[in-house]
Amino acid sequence: MTMAFSSLTPVFVAIICVLIGIIVKGRKTNSKNEPRKTSKKAESRPWVDDDLKDSTDLHPEEEDDGEWQESEDIAHTPFSLERYSEEDMIKRSKNFYELLNKRRSVRFISDEPVPREVIDNVIKTAGTSPSGAHTEPWTFVVVKDIEIKHKIREIIEEEEEINYKKRMGDRWVNDLKRLRTNWIKEYLDTAPYLILIFKQVHGMLPDGKKKTHYYNEISVSIACGILLAALQNVGLVTVTTTPLNCGPRLRVLLGRPTNEKLLMLLPVGYPSKDATVPDLTRKPLDDIMVVV
Amino acid sequence: MTMAFSSLTPVFVAIICVLIGIIVKGRKTNSKNEPRKTSKKAESRPWVDDDLKDSTDLHPEEEDDGEWQESEDIAHTPFSLERYSEEDMIKRSKNFYELLNKRRSVRFISDEPVPREVIDNVIKTAGTSPSGAHTEPWTFVVVKDIEIKHKIREIIEEEEEINYKKRMGDRWVNDLKRLRTNWIKEYLDTAPYLILIFKQVHGMLPDGKKKTHYYNEISVSIACGILLAALQNVGLVTVTTTPLNCGPRLRVLLGRPTNEKLLMLLPVGYPSKDATVPDLTRKPLDDIMVVV
Repeated sequence: MTMAFSSLTPVFVAIICVLIGIIVKGRKTNSKNEPRKTSKKAESRPWVDDDLKDSTDLHPEEEDDGEWQESEDIAHTPFSLERYSEEDMIKRSKNFYELLNKRRSVRFISDEPVPREVIDNVIKTAGTSPSGAHTEPWTFVVVKDIEIKHKIREIIEEEEEINYKKRMGDRWVNDLKRLRTNWIKEYLDTAPYLILIFKQVHGMLPDGKKKTHYYNEISVSIACGILLAALQNVGLVTVTTTPLNCGPRLRVLLGRPTNEKLLMLLPVGYPSKDATVPDLTRKPLDDIMVVV
Repeated sequence: MTMAFSSLTPVFVAIICVLIGIIVKGRKTNSKNEPRKTSKKAESRPWVDDDLKDSTDLHPEEEDDGEWQESEDIAHTPFSLERYSEEDMIKRSKNFYELLNKRRSVRFISDEPVPREVIDNVIKTAGTSPSGAHTEPWTFVVVKDIEIKHKIREIIEEEEEINYKKRMGDRWVNDLKRLRTNWIKEYLDTAPYLILIFKQVHGMLPDGKKKTHYYNEISVSIACGILLAALQNVGLVTVTTTPLNCGPRLRVLLGRPTNEKLLMLLPVGYPSKDATVPDLTRKPLDDIMVVV
């Protein structure tokens, strides 16, 4: 009995060593995970869909002061802006509202050609958007090639069909109406231009290190808002789409680098003769504005 | 010797049991963390700063088809839009670019009053923005009350001072230049209007359940882009700010519900006589546009 144990002793010791080893290893991985779960990094991760898995962390503790401007020591120059009379301001604000209030998301787009110079100008306009620390983290890929447009349509319809059919299961019972929609997106062929908007989730510094692009998704979304206004201003239509799970395949198709992630796709052209839109209304001012 | 070991045996066994216990526990917590790290929820969590911790998850598998329109069975109506000649389109696109290219982020704002009707119109214009599934998930809080503006300034400067001083430590060595910036934001007192833009991270259904607001942050950011264009169009200036860690206190100060999270704060007014802006340039078209 005693003999047996004493002979087993080295085994016990071995077991203990192994177990301690396992624990220490476990501790290490934990301590690696904890901060990811609790640190600002994790909380400040921008929204990402399946396409956008790689790190676009913000680092609030390295964040600029919340104003979207380089805080570096850059020379300042005097600024002035054309000043309108109050009467003119009211008239201009009313006219601009009436122009943009006619904007609708249109998915019936004519194949009539659109002057390329207009596309250049609306994208230059989007490029005037502010951005976190003036990083200008956007790339506008304008697709006019018929075959590439069709490849884009194939990728999106393939993914949308999967999304759609997966959804049907979930919604079958309580939302039969949704079944009337489908994943066919003819406008991806007919629209003379597809504008794919990529956000640059980080930049590159001369020393090859990653340059953080603060608020890159918000910045690029703001630029898209300005782009939508510019399109409406010239009488072109589009529909704001965020193709689900298509980002990586479209990025590869268009040869964009890995630091660029698809944020939006806008088919652009004239509305087709038989274009229709859902009979939706917008919230009145009192429902969206509070004055204190 | 042998005696010693045999008497220690129970101790070995005890130790082994404890160690095994610890390992099993460790395993449990790991397996609890794994899914959180890899699930869609975690990946699809919108960007949140310290203010915005509560759930604004997207569920791509429940996502609509990527087009920002109700897929419900809504009646469709014919759509048409004013058609401009190609010459007019080019001219309009050029003029709009030149107007918006004069926009700069300005933090020297005059206390001259601005017609309230203009503010109403620019916010109505922002409200024409598209939104995921037409949820219109935005609330624009317009602050003109002098005392509330000052309270907002106190909250922001208090937080910014902390952010700033925390930052100084990190950057002391390699970025002395940044020290020239500070956390004083006089424009929060002087601007006749502060527009605080809240995103509604979810809505409420009649049955009291949460209504998912797909892409609420992107939607509200697009609306901000349109708002910036509307402000520039009437000769008003602002600076795009995302006050770090101030959201909850500002939300409470303004009495907004918990489903609303501060996304942006825009001080709005005329530029002050001595306003200056950093001498920054914008990327040329070739650096932001790719045509295929």
